[in-house]
Amino acid sequence: MVNVAILGYGVVGSGVYKVINENNSHVSRRAGDTVRVKYVLDLREFPGDPAEDVLVHDFDVILNDEEVDVIVETMGGVEPAHTFEVKALKAGKSVCTSNKEVVAKWGFELLQLAKENNCNFFFEASVGGGIPVIRPLINSITADHIKSISGILNGTTNYILTKMADEGIAFEEVLKDAQNKGYAERNPEADIEGYDACRKIAILASLAYEKQVDYEDIYTEGITKITAIDFWYAGQLDASIKLLGLAKRQNGVVYAMVAPFIVKANNPLFGVNDVFNAILLDGDMLGEVMFYGKGAGSLPTASAVVSDVIEAAKNKGKNIPILWRPEKRELGSVDVFETSYLVRVSGLKAVERLREIFGDAESEIRYERNKEEIFKREIKHAFGAVEFIEGQHGGEVAFVTGPMSGADFEKAAEDFVIENRIRIAEV
Amino acid sequence: MVNVAILGYGVVGSGVYKVINENNSHVSRRAGDTVRVKYVLDLREFPGDPAEDVLVHDFDVILNDEEVDVIVETMGGVEPAHTFEVKALKAGKSVCTSNKEVVAKWGFELLQLAKENNCNFFFEASVGGGIPVIRPLINSITADHIKSISGILNGTTNYILTKMADEGIAFEEVLKDAQNKGYAERNPEADIEGYDACRKIAILASLAYEKQVDYEDIYTEGITKITAIDFWYAGQLDASIKLLGLAKRQNGVVYAMVAPFIVKANNPLFGVNDVFNAILLDGDMLGEVMFYGKGAGSLPTASAVVSDVIEAAKNKGKNIPILWRPEKRELGSVDVFETSYLVRVSGLKAVERLREIFGDAESEIRYERNKEEIFKREIKHAFGAVEFIEGQHGGEVAFVTGPMSGADFEKAAEDFVIENRIRIAEV
Repeated sequence: MVNVAILGYGVVGSGVYKVINENNSHVSRRAGDTVRVKYVLDLREFPGDPAEDVLVHDFDVILNDEEVDVIVETMGGVEPAHTFEVKALKAGKSVCTSNKEVVAKWGFELLQLAKENNCNFFFEASVGGGIPVIRPLINSITADHIKSISGILNGTTNYILTKMADEGIAFEEVLKDAQNKGYAERNPEADIEGYDACRKIAILASLAYEKQVDYEDIYTEGITKITAIDFWYAGQLDASIKLLGLAKRQNGVVYAMVAPFIVKANNPLFGVNDVFNAILLDGDMLGEVMFYGKGAGSLPTASAVVSDVIEAAKNKGKNIPILWRPEKRELGSVDVFETSYLVRVSGLKAVERLREIFGDAESEIRYERNKEEIFKREIKHAFGAVEFIEGQHGGEVAFVTGPMSGADFEKAAEDFVIENRIRIAEV
Repeated sequence: MVNVAILGYGVVGSGVYKVINENNSHVSRRAGDTVRVKYVLDLREFPGDPAEDVLVHDFDVILNDEEVDVIVETMGGVEPAHTFEVKALKAGKSVCTSNKEVVAKWGFELLQLAKENNCNFFFEASVGGGIPVIRPLINSITADHIKSISGILNGTTNYILTKMADEGIAFEEVLKDAQNKGYAERNPEADIEGYDACRKIAILASLAYEKQVDYEDIYTEGITKITAIDFWYAGQLDASIKLLGLAKRQNGVVYAMVAPFIVKANNPLFGVNDVFNAILLDGDMLGEVMFYGKGAGSLPTASAVVSDVIEAAKNKGKNIPILWRPEKRELGSVDVFETSYLVRVSGLKAVERLREIFGDAESEIRYERNKEEIFKREIKHAFGAVEFIEGQHGGEVAFVTGPMSGADFEKAAEDFVIENRIRIAEV
């Protein structure tokens, strides 16, 4: 018998209860032993719910029950989730969690505790919901140096961006629609500002590059500045715009960031739409592989948690080593990171400079008359070799730069009124 | 020290040698011990090749060396590969192979031998080349009943079909081009007739449904009958045509087949082009997940083999149980399997019947004049509710049927001159 306690009977926790019970003979056969939910911990009552009989309100009941082998932590938030996980592991109980905040912040510490106590800390569901990606990184893509990981890691923002792309609707309007449909939270900041994706790429980067990547170090840019005009230009490039979590080794340095990226049609991430997630890995031997599926939702996420429970059951009393050392990984700065950009320019900043160029009297008239030509000349001068995009929106000039460092970009952009600039994903 | 012997120094075997040597510190760290290639077995000589120093021509040298822990079998073909694997496992040496013929035919037997001898039989590279799919099926997607697996499992045919779709070129011409480019063999039968995909779906179905699926039992149809006209009609349906390996549970029965399928744009497999492979799994809790990447090639395939070597090294002396029982899985018949079809009809078979309908004298003239109308009436009568496709090619009528069993389809089709019929993939 493998006894499981579920901490938190919310969306994911109730899904875990359902998967273990509805697929019990299957789950037990895969685990090599009968799996049952002995406890559900929640502050609330659930009268009439099947979990009512196993509901407890005191974590210590679970902690002190020696029969409990596996703790499923699906409470979310940092505390008391983290403290409960620590106590469970110290008591030799394996922990399986979907809690990305705790994994990103305390992953290496919890892995270490699991090792010391001959149990396991598993977190497949913390990234990509139901998509198997953590275990493949640990057990499958092991022969390769990972050149890069880029992922659509947040379903809410991908839904919003897909709607904007398909229907040409403004960000605020789509957000409202997503909130009404329950795809976005009332307080959507964690999603739309990229904080959620940031924790997830921190976890993936820590595993791929074997050292602790602190999510606080990760440059994070959300999708709130993306407009319908950006999508129009992206369309001209046969591309779309996706919020990517990116981790990449470039000239021996590891970079990590979350930002909107131009994703071209030949990139496998291009076709990943709506609430779907996908993670694209590039290995030095393997080339590109992609994992695609539902990144959220009660049952898909629970499916991943229960696969962890099964692994914990199969490896009772034996720690599975996971390479994620406590040493901190110093990330390269976005100022140094090289990428191409799509840039939209609507004006020249320095009117003074403008007057220098043209003398003074007729300069403004001439400027208006020859705006596009002047822009283009100045852009070439500042950004070097660029590719201008055909077609125009409201007197803007849009162009694609070659690969340049963040610092060089900022310097080149100084003299221009930049409407927006979006990084371009490499394939 | 983990000592590896590679049997067969061809495309994949030489890749394995390269991955273990070029990524040695990485591979060894992941394995938890230094990994080295102690032997390469091949009948040929390789003067000047780095493997020359470890080259042997006699398998017994490897078998009798107690230092050898892991055998990599990358010879291909059934014999002597199968015999060598049996001998290795009986000697307690783990076997890692890319050989789909051997895995499909002898998988359960070799897994049993590995179990009896406390070693492992791994075969990640036998399906999908470098794409991790075998281990995810064993270790990750374990909480779900698998509703279906559908995969683009053969890069050569996917390249041919992609070319046909993009350029409207006939099959024979694209095949020639693929042969010239080295994407297709001089004798392309195993690819274009679906035999390669058949072995791969047999392996996936055996793992997903836990009993031996004999590949000889799998209905297999190649791509040789697909024409540019089929692609034209597929385009009208916003779809493409892909050779799929399919395993599916329908009304409690497992079906498996290889055949060209109409794949609509909302199916994640739609965007899988050129030599890429992808495997789409549908779990009862998880929903759909897809694994995508390079299904062939020296280094991608070798990457998967070496990940197996790493797992074998990590689990020295300990068998990892894999559910694939020797009991034979009786597959449902294609006559019973329900699917929709795209059908192209160019005529009515029974001229006699035609005369019955119209009397006799003017019938042929009236037939020619009203062909489309007559077809449509007869098609509705025979196939029930169908959806006709707008636009026409050469006097044909094309339509999409509702889901119907293979036997019902054959019966309905009896009276018609069928130009082609292609199954339609469900999403």
